[in-house]
Amino acid sequence: MHRLLLALGAASLPAAALANYPAPDAGALADHAAEHDTIAWDFVEGITTEVGPRQAGTEAEKRGREWAMRWLKRNGFANVADEPFEMETWVPGDLHKAEIISPYPQPLVIQPLGGSASTGPDGITAEVIEFESVDALREAVPGLLEGRIAYVSHDMTPTQDGSQYGFAGPARWVGAGIAAQHGAVATVIKSVGTDYHRNPHVGGTGFPEGVAPTPAGALSLPDAANLERMFDRSGGAAIVMKLTLTPRDLGTTTSGNVVGEIVGRDPSLPPVLLACHLDSWWNGTGAFDDGAGCGIAAAAAKNATAHEQPLRTIRVLFAGAEETGLWGSKAYSAAHIDEPVGVAFESDFGADRIWQFQSNFREANPELHAQIARAVARFGVSNSTIVATGGADINIARDQDAAIIDLQQDGSRYFDLHHTPDDTLDKIDPVQLRQNVAVWTQVVGILANYEGEIRPKE
Amino acid sequence: MHRLLLALGAASLPAAALANYPAPDAGALADHAAEHDTIAWDFVEGITTEVGPRQAGTEAEKRGREWAMRWLKRNGFANVADEPFEMETWVPGDLHKAEIISPYPQPLVIQPLGGSASTGPDGITAEVIEFESVDALREAVPGLLEGRIAYVSHDMTPTQDGSQYGFAGPARWVGAGIAAQHGAVATVIKSVGTDYHRNPHVGGTGFPEGVAPTPAGALSLPDAANLERMFDRSGGAAIVMKLTLTPRDLGTTTSGNVVGEIVGRDPSLPPVLLACHLDSWWNGTGAFDDGAGCGIAAAAAKNATAHEQPLRTIRVLFAGAEETGLWGSKAYSAAHIDEPVGVAFESDFGADRIWQFQSNFREANPELHAQIARAVARFGVSNSTIVATGGADINIARDQDAAIIDLQQDGSRYFDLHHTPDDTLDKIDPVQLRQNVAVWTQVVGILANYEGEIRPKE
Repeated sequence: MHRLLLALGAASLPAAALANYPAPDAGALADHAAEHDTIAWDFVEGITTEVGPRQAGTEAEKRGREWAMRWLKRNGFANVADEPFEMETWVPGDLHKAEIISPYPQPLVIQPLGGSASTGPDGITAEVIEFESVDALREAVPGLLEGRIAYVSHDMTPTQDGSQYGFAGPARWVGAGIAAQHGAVATVIKSVGTDYHRNPHVGGTGFPEGVAPTPAGALSLPDAANLERMFDRSGGAAIVMKLTLTPRDLGTTTSGNVVGEIVGRDPSLPPVLLACHLDSWWNGTGAFDDGAGCGIAAAAAKNATAHEQPLRTIRVLFAGAEETGLWGSKAYSAAHIDEPVGVAFESDFGADRIWQFQSNFREANPELHAQIARAVARFGVSNSTIVATGGADINIARDQDAAIIDLQQDGSRYFDLHHTPDDTLDKIDPVQLRQNVAVWTQVVGILANYEGEIRPKE
Repeated sequence: MHRLLLALGAASLPAAALANYPAPDAGALADHAAEHDTIAWDFVEGITTEVGPRQAGTEAEKRGREWAMRWLKRNGFANVADEPFEMETWVPGDLHKAEIISPYPQPLVIQPLGGSASTGPDGITAEVIEFESVDALREAVPGLLEGRIAYVSHDMTPTQDGSQYGFAGPARWVGAGIAAQHGAVATVIKSVGTDYHRNPHVGGTGFPEGVAPTPAGALSLPDAANLERMFDRSGGAAIVMKLTLTPRDLGTTTSGNVVGEIVGRDPSLPPVLLACHLDSWWNGTGAFDDGAGCGIAAAAAKNATAHEQPLRTIRVLFAGAEETGLWGSKAYSAAHIDEPVGVAFESDFGADRIWQFQSNFREANPELHAQIARAVARFGVSNSTIVATGGADINIARDQDAAIIDLQQDGSRYFDLHHTPDDTLDKIDPVQLRQNVAVWTQVVGILANYEGEIRPKE
């Protein structure tokens, strides 16, 4: 049934399709989306099934762009394009093993962190030294890590706003770099995540200027717990691991940002920019992160304009290569810095319900902020005095000091899935996804027809 | 704290330890176990951490036996032995890949079924033909599968008693054999399981007499769902897969059954036999299946005899090589067929709570049946008129027409974990495990001190 709606262009809705939509005001369109939206689901089902993993800079990401452009055109978006940029590309390779050699021989499940060096196919064997946190690693006894493997743990719990990521994340973000500075031959971390499945949480790791990258991998949380029990039980005997990780740097490759528009009646007005990212880590299919985000943004643009052309142009930006360093976001800002953005927001935190509305124009433009806050309240979305700073893919809005909105999604289970093989379609809750699309539809509908200037400052 | 109790032999409890136990009747000992047992947890934590996966017939299984014998001796069991037997041993090999080549190129997560042949390291590439069930596979159009890969689905939901396994299991048990008879070059099944994680459910598959084994693997449930969506979306275009599975047959190797006893005051009485299996599939650490079962059996034997020597000998049988064909159970029966068993029961269905008591002596020995049923009712365990048939590792009791008990465990989440990498310690709920041990302690306490004959028939 939903295929009918998907085949319709926004600029040319036949009467039969219009009958499916209620009266043309943003509220009614949002209410309709809350009950009936299938557009976001269609996008994320399609890209995860027909493309699958989309590692930044690779041929798979390119297939993702081609798929997304076909989808946007089929769904009535205009000016659909792939805007290329160059980037440095890392791929995970084939061998991912962590074997305890002594005293308790058994294999552990591991995957390489983005930016990890290779151990070579024969692996490296060394004693593992345990650190309960990055802070403990920083204070490692000089010489202790020379020729050894650092194991870095952390203590992460789920939070609605995802704020624990800021506290637990450094184990991944900087652990390997600090260990390398201490002479470690490799680093193994406890996955930065909150689940208990045999799925490592990957993601990028960084090495300081002048520090040569070392092999670095994430153990799944059950494997990390097992390794920690080994330390508890070994009575001080050395824990020796054979680590085999064979990622590779491909050098410079071409990626791209996919853009598309619902063209407004007054193209001179700065557009509403809706962003997400198309790339995913190689180990999942990029459903929660971030196929759903692109589906939500595109669905909102279509739903909010189902009856009539908006005043402002709505532009969707499906950024490339977010995961490995915001390459697409930076390239988009560089290419379009002279084209003012009216207001920008992004969906990149899964597909669960939206619980809070934030903007950076609450003080400069209180009436608009209040109008939006009132309009989304019926979906269970709270107002906030927090100043929105926007997601990773809207660098351009920050670079332009433009208006920004954050529609905060429930992150309680986001870090169960984040950067794991388990980021697959079945994890998406269609009911929460529709609430999310409904809120977006409401907000886009207001902003795309807002005549005044939307500026965060006077 | 629990290490103190573990260091104590049942035959020589010092006064300090006895102070931790209540008055010496089976009920009080069971109540104590429900609140305080740490013995079962210690076993399963120990074997999963210090040994890990224990594939039948391998060196890892042998390390499991050695570990278990040390544990039994340390915990006061007598006559601890490793009773060897020979078996045919299969190992999974290193390469496990299922790559969709067209029309939607992406990797799927797969693992080989026990008994699978090898594709060779270069894999095989062929069109995949979809069957929604084993019944549909049986009725495949002649010639359709020649040179192709069969994909066999099923529809499994969780049940408390695990009965859905009987309906969904044939996809694994006989799917590959039927497909081979139809000329398929390989078989891929939807994992026989009820979870939604990227963890294949392995387990043995059988080929009929005279049918050469073919490569056979299980996709994780999210991957199976993805493949099924590909069929829905491809518009009839062939789905082509490259399958690479490299298991090997090692030929004849030696495995063994570990036994140990709490010797009774009257060794002439047939013993109470408590069974489980020590081997596990290679991909998990054998916590739910079946490290916990051995921990439960051993804990019950120790708890029930904490104060005094039982009337009957209690024998634990930690069977070897259950998963690949009940090799240990058969070998034990063959070796001990002339030694009458008094009553036998087994724990091999996870570590969740016991909800039902069944015996095969309810009619022949109604008072004993009723006594046990009354005693376990306070733990939320219901009585049953179902005639117990016993688990896989007590072939000897069936071969002797001996008394059998089934303490049915809650299987609602068992098939989320069964034969997957996710069968790890963190999945065990300590509260449910203690309820389980308490019920076992109660039942063992009654039976080990029962003077009459425990026969299922007059």
